[in-house]
Order: sequence, then C-alpha cells, then structure tokens
Amino acid sequence: MSKEITSQEENYSEWYLDIVKKAQLADNSKVKGCMVIKPYGFAIWEKMRDELDRQFKATGHQNAYFPLFIPKSFLSKEAAHVDGFAKECAVVTHHRLKVGADGKSVVVDETAKLEEELIVRPTSETIIWDTYKDWIKSYRDLPLLINQWANVVRWELRTRLFLRTTEFLWQEGHTAHATEAEAIAEARQMLDIYADFARDFMAMPVYKGTKTPNERFAGADDTYTIEALMQDGKALQAGTSHFLGQNFAKAFEVTFLNENNKNEYVWATSWGVSTRLMGALIMSHSDNEGLVLPPKLAPIQVVIIPIPKPDEAIDAKVAEISQALRKKGITVKYDNDTKTRPGFKFAEYEMRGVPVRLALGARDLQNGTIEIARRDTKEKKSVSLENIADYVENLLVEIQDNLYQKASQRLKDRTHTVNTWEEFVDVVENKGGFAYAYWDGTTETEVKIKNLTQATARCMPWDLEVAEGTKTCILTGAPATQRVLFAKAY
Amino acid sequence: MSKEITSQEENYSEWYLDIVKKAQLADNSKVKGCMVIKPYGFAIWEKMRDELDRQFKATGHQNAYFPLFIPKSFLSKEAAHVDGFAKECAVVTHHRLKVGADGKSVVVDETAKLEEELIVRPTSETIIWDTYKDWIKSYRDLPLLINQWANVVRWELRTRLFLRTTEFLWQEGHTAHATEAEAIAEARQMLDIYADFARDFMAMPVYKGTKTPNERFAGADDTYTIEALMQDGKALQAGTSHFLGQNFAKAFEVTFLNENNKNEYVWATSWGVSTRLMGALIMSHSDNEGLVLPPKLAPIQVVIIPIPKPDEAIDAKVAEISQALRKKGITVKYDNDTKTRPGFKFAEYEMRGVPVRLALGARDLQNGTIEIARRDTKEKKSVSLENIADYVENLLVEIQDNLYQKASQRLKDRTHTVNTWEEFVDVVENKGGFAYAYWDGTTETEVKIKNLTQATARCMPWDLEVAEGTKTCILTGAPATQRVLFAKAY
Repeated sequence: MSKEITSQEENYSEWYLDIVKKAQLADNSKVKGCMVIKPYGFAIWEKMRDELDRQFKATGHQNAYFPLFIPKSFLSKEAAHVDGFAKECAVVTHHRLKVGADGKSVVVDETAKLEEELIVRPTSETIIWDTYKDWIKSYRDLPLLINQWANVVRWELRTRLFLRTTEFLWQEGHTAHATEAEAIAEARQMLDIYADFARDFMAMPVYKGTKTPNERFAGADDTYTIEALMQDGKALQAGTSHFLGQNFAKAFEVTFLNENNKNEYVWATSWGVSTRLMGALIMSHSDNEGLVLPPKLAPIQVVIIPIPKPDEAIDAKVAEISQALRKKGITVKYDNDTKTRPGFKFAEYEMRGVPVRLALGARDLQNGTIEIARRDTKEKKSVSLENIADYVENLLVEIQDNLYQKASQRLKDRTHTVNTWEEFVDVVENKGGFAYAYWDGTTETEVKIKNLTQATARCMPWDLEVAEGTKTCILTGAPATQRVLFAKAY
Repeated sequence: MSKEITSQEENYSEWYLDIVKKAQLADNSKVKGCMVIKPYGFAIWEKMRDELDRQFKATGHQNAYFPLFIPKSFLSKEAAHVDGFAKECAVVTHHRLKVGADGKSVVVDETAKLEEELIVRPTSETIIWDTYKDWIKSYRDLPLLINQWANVVRWELRTRLFLRTTEFLWQEGHTAHATEAEAIAEARQMLDIYADFARDFMAMPVYKGTKTPNERFAGADDTYTIEALMQDGKALQAGTSHFLGQNFAKAFEVTFLNENNKNEYVWATSWGVSTRLMGALIMSHSDNEGLVLPPKLAPIQVVIIPIPKPDEAIDAKVAEISQALRKKGITVKYDNDTKTRPGFKFAEYEMRGVPVRLALGARDLQNGTIEIARRDTKEKKSVSLENIADYVENLLVEIQDNLYQKASQRLKDRTHTVNTWEEFVDVVENKGGFAYAYWDGTTETEVKIKNLTQATARCMPWDLEVAEGTKTCILTGAPATQRVLFAKAY
C-alpha cells in the first residue's frame, strides 16, 4: 500500500495529497474547492476541537451561534474589512427554485430575488458586532467572551485539501472589553493557548509573533500569529489572534456606559484556528510510509494484530491487554478481520499513523512476549507480556515527546539569522526555512522582497533572541529597528 | 422580572417567545428568519448534542463532514426530493462583490457568475449519496454508518425562534446497508434512541410511530417520527428517521457487489433532530415564572445565593458545599455579586430555570441549616447543612422524575380515543391534544380533515393500544384498518 504514495523527495505536494487520501482523512467533493472530511480525518479534528474548547471554557469563554448569512451592507461598514473579503464571497441572491420551461430541469425562480443579497460568512465580525450592539450597554456587560464553532466560506481560486478550501471549519472567538489593555491581553492570551496546544497536543513547535501591517487581518490594529515550519522548509500560519482596537465598535456603534457614567466605544479582539491545523499536523510528522500522528491526537492509539489470524488463545490474551490499556484511557483497536493478512494490516495502520502496533502470535503466547512497533521510528522489538500496559503507556509518552523534539530540532536548524541579501536569498531559495532579517518597516520593501523571492514576512517573533547585527534593512540598507522572520509559506 | 412575561393563558405564543428572550436562550438576528443562539441557550444545546453524539457513537456511527453547498443539478436527481425542497432554497449565484458605480457601495460582480448555481444544503442526502458512490464498492464496505452535525437552511416564510428558523443546527445520520431489513432495523433503532433521549434527558414522553404517506420525508419510503405534546395541547414533531429504500442509491447509481458477486443497489436511511428540540424542551416544562429545565440538561443545576450578601463565613461554607456538590458531578454557581439583591437574583434564576436554589444567611449558619427551593414545584424549605450534597443529589433526581411524570400524565390525559366526527372535532377544537381515530388511508381524506379542522395526521403509533371500536373512517365512514393520532401541531 505504501508504494502508492509519492515520496516527499519526488514531489512534496503530491506526497501530501497522497497521504490525505490514502490515510482516508479527506477527499475533494463535486463542489469546487469544498472538501469532504472523512470519518478518520474528522475523528482527529474532533480531538483537536474538544481540547481547544476545553481550554477556551477554562479561560472563561462561552460558546454561542450566529447566522451563516451576512447582509451585504454589513460587510461594507468596516472599510478595511470589506476590502479584505469582498473579492472571495459566496453570494446568495435568490430563495427559490422552480421547474424550468422544459418541464424537467430546475431553474432559479427570478421572482424570488432577495431585496438585499446575503453573503455566506467568510468570518463573523460584522454580524457579531451588529448583535453586540444590543448586548452591551454598560461596563457591567464587559468583558464579553464568546466563541463560535462554525463553517465559513472564502471563494479561493487555488485550493488544497485542509490547507486552503472554499469551505472550512473553524472556531472564531469574538470578545469585547472596556479597555485597550484588557483587549490586548486577551488577544495575547489566546495566542498563547494556540501555541501551547500546538506544542502539547500537535507536537508542533511554533514561533509566536506580530504580523507586519501588510499581513494584518482586514480590520485589525494588530494581528498576532503562530507560525510553524513544515518538512519542506515552508512556513505555515497555524492560528491568528487579532487586536481589533475600536474599529468594529465604531463601525457598528457599540458603546458602553463606563463607571463614570460616560459613553465609550468598546475594545475588541477576534481569534481563530481552522481545519488548516489538520494540514499542519500531517505535514509536521508524516513520512513516506504515510501519516504519523502524535499519540494525543490519534483516534486509535494502539492497534493489536493477531499473527497470522485470530484464535481463542490469542483473542483471550488480547481481551486482557485491551482492558488493561483502556483502563489507562488508551484507545485500542483489535483488528481480527480474517480476510486480510498481517502484512496488509501492518501497511494499512502505518499509512493511517497509528502510533503503536502490537502483534501477537502463538509463539509469543508460549514465550510470554509480544511484538511492539512504534510508528515514529519504525523500531520493532519483542517485549514481555507482563506489564505490557505500563510499557505501552510510557511508549506513547515517549513517542509524543520524540515527535516534538524532532520538529523542534528542525525548526532550530532551519531558522537562519541572516545579515546580507545573499544570505537571505540562499536561505529562501536553497536552504529553506526561516530567514531572520532586518527590514526597514515599509510595506514597499516587503512587497519587493516577495516579488523577488516569493518569501513573505511571517512575523516579528516575540521570543527569538539572536545577536543584534547591523540594524539595516536586508534589501534596502535603510535603518531598521526590528528583525522579521521571512519564509515561503503555505 | 417574571412580571415581564406574558402568561400562558393570556397568549401562549407570546409566553413562549418571552421565555426564549428573557431566559436569554436566543434572539432574532438582522437576517430574516435566522436566529442568534445565546450562550445560555447554546449551553443547553451542547448538553443535548453531546449526549446524542455519545449514543450515536455507542451504536457504531462515526462523524464526518460534507459540503455546505449542493450543485443545483444534484437536487433534481431524486424526483420527490426536489419537489420537497426546491421551493425553500437559498441559492448562491455569484462568488464576488465589487465596488459600485458610486465608488462607495458594494455590489455583486456580474462577471463572477457561477456556471451552475449552488444550493445551501436544506438536508444532505444528495451530496452524500453522490459521495457514497465512490466509497461503496462491495458488501465489505457495508454497513456505512455516518452522522454529521451541521447547519442547514430552509427558506421559511413564517419563522419562530427554535421551532422554525431559516437556518438551524442539526445532526443528520446517513447510512447505507446491504439489505432492506437491515436498513429498516437501523431506522427504527435511531428512532428508539431519539425517544429514549427525549424521555431520559428531556423528561419528555413521546409517541413513536409511522407517518402517513402524505407526511413522509421527500424521497423516503417510510418516515418514523417521535411526537410530543406541548402544554397548549399542540403536537410537536421532535425527530424523524427515514427508511429511504433504494431511492437515492438509484438516483446516484450506488451499487455494491454482494457476496455472490452480483451488483445490487444499496439500501438507505437518514435521521435527524435539530435545535427544534430546544423549543420542545422549553414548552414541555416551563411556567409563567419562566424556564423550567430538567436537571440533566441544565447548564447550572444549583445556584447558591448569599443572604443578604456575601461575607467571610458564608463564603467559606459555600466553598465547602460547592466542593461537595462538584465531587458528585453537579454543576453549581455561587452568585456573590454584591450589586444585586437576593430577590432580584431569585427571580433571575427562576427565569433561567435553574432546578435548585440554595440560600444561605447568618441565621442559617447559626442553626446549621440552609434554605432550599426547587424550581419545578416552587417548594421551599429549610434543611440541615449536614449531608446537604446528598440531599441535593437526590432532589435533582426527584425533579427530573417529577417533570417526566407531569408531562406523561398530561400526554395520557390529552390523548383521546375518538369514534365519531363530533368527538374528533371536540378534541381538536376544544379539548386539545391528540385525537386517536380511524382513517380510511387516503391522502384525500387526510387533506380534508386538515382543511376542516387544521389537525394533521401526526403518526400511526407503534405502542398505543386501545379498545378496537368500529373500523370505519372518522370522516368518510369508509372501511379503515388503522387508527392515526391527529392533532394541531407546531
């Protein structure tokens, strides 16, 4: 089965799509740019969603649900926002179909034209802030800490499963605050939650940082981002958190009576991660044999395979092992299908990224042993059946940790502090990874760099210290105050 | 606060909307027919969703996600299906907006017209069966047991919060089977799950039954339903499960190779419940003081209020009680806000349907007692602080049970076996509730009955035995074989 995968070296992009399809994570649908998320892929997404949801609630956020549709006029109320989204909107114009003139086909009923077109939400700031106007009257209504899990639509021309799709699933937090400082603290707190989740669950290290003005969310005063590095040396923006200032409050006239009985505009944030995280997860750890999953997000953590096929003695021992594993909260599957051979099963669970495989045959039973294989390193050994549950439990922790260490080493190795344009180009075009370079702070230079090298400003990182170097822009030589992480990106 | 609610007797419909709004469950949005589900309402929906999801998974179903959009041509592939849904579709015709001629407004970009219009899913049979064509090849791929939690859109002319909205949230199960018998068993199993959930969690008794052909889902061979009775004597369809025969398999050419190596069409079911359950829940138990919630679905099960305000001794005792309650898995809120008075708080939590209220003051502390009030009966008494957690735990069980008993008694009292047209009309127009009557089995009679009385055939119940009576149709006197439950309905 693994032979059906294109290798990373041959074609990274094909390799990625092969894994998404062969591991049965998602597939293209007949609707251009929209994907079908298959049960195995959705089970991984559910694990991500449930953990994030737990963390949002633990920090005081509540879930709510706002309409799928946004009146066209709402979108135009915040000038930067409409510029950012108008070009990629699905527009609902009618509310009825009818039988066509041929008596058979179905056509749009022109008498059912909407007075005002509706946009399928590309993001919900406008409809939510229009609602907050009614919810917020005084400082006592603040902070308002709301999250929504929803589908959104952005009409993308070039799509790729999970990474960029016309419809995607996400969560969008929308909070309202009495002060600027509190809103900024909220936006930073949520970025920390994303970064910690990426590290602790996805085994994916990220840089936290601030976007350049040119890369900001449409309508934000500041955008914070987590940027991860894929195995091909490209960066991937995995989550963003926006300090929206009073922009949406002003556009939708949302004010509150402060403690001194004066009306003030409300301060806002919004923040989101999406099914794009699935793409980041896949590309962080997988190899030429298929998907590799960190144990904490694996729908099946352990698979047990009878050698060469199930029998009473094997079934009994497997039942015992499974029970011991489940008691520890470990998800286990016994594949006792008699119609496929062990070798085929091995390849299939490798392809699907199951972290630990146990194989048990008659000889093992005699010897009191079992064969254990880990997906990440492909190591295989025979271990004692005694305390096998403890052994597996420790191994899952070790695998989770190993994946993180490997990804961290890669991030470190491929983050290059550069001080000349030649070094910059060498990183971006040959070495791959991040080039950490001084930039003169102008959008003009940023755009030039992009046009010359395809590298974009990923962020001004918060926690990346390096030797200062000469504070001049890598391209223009103009004075610079801040280094920026540049990379080609997804 | 409760004074702001219209009483049931004055205007049942206004009473319902008052509760939805004052208990902060949902609100109308600026988008016609679309609602905003507020955090408190959404927390109740999450509890319902999580429990149903657990039961779906326990019976072997997996979640997946299919596109929001359906190509117009898909809808027409199943003849009955398109008849059922074409008249209430949101139609996407364009994928871009642009700046208008005035340089300011935003208008639809006519150059971005879609080749084929997309329908926002009113239900997903068509897009899913088009996908199943690729997933199902042999009997080994069956049964395919998939569920999806999603938003759907049906362009309703008259909407009412939760009960009938243009966009609503739901789950839709879509399963594929090798045999007719297996598909029917699946459809019945899922209806049982709905009915048990209604009874055990919503404290809402329902009739399980089969719909008349006229009331079937568009594209089904048979529709099974659970029908509940609201306090105003109207029926409410709370969930449906459909045996789809081979209709969608034929429309989308989905066949499988059976064990004898022959191609056969696949058998199908679909089944769903939606945010409409919120409406059913509210109308099953609430009263003129506000929402009444069964403890199992209450986001806050116990509220503790300091009398008249918090102090150190009260705080300490409340912390102790809260900890003991939380250990038992009971959700508890301590409202120590100093800016509102106890009386105001009492009214607020009554409005929001919190099942148990504890009030603790200095005198209680001296006496070793606490005041406990239950929302359902409004009984209030002073009980010992010793073992208060056990007391509350038992009381929550008792409240859950009491709500179910009350609703069951009502259902029983208001289900009338009728044998003459006069009795029928008396039930439907005066007494309210269900009229259980013989019907001649024709759609013509069913429609006549509806036109004469507004009562519709709710279902042919599975478990409702009564004395046989003369087997003639209540309206036409023609021979009849089956009694049907008729009622006015939501």
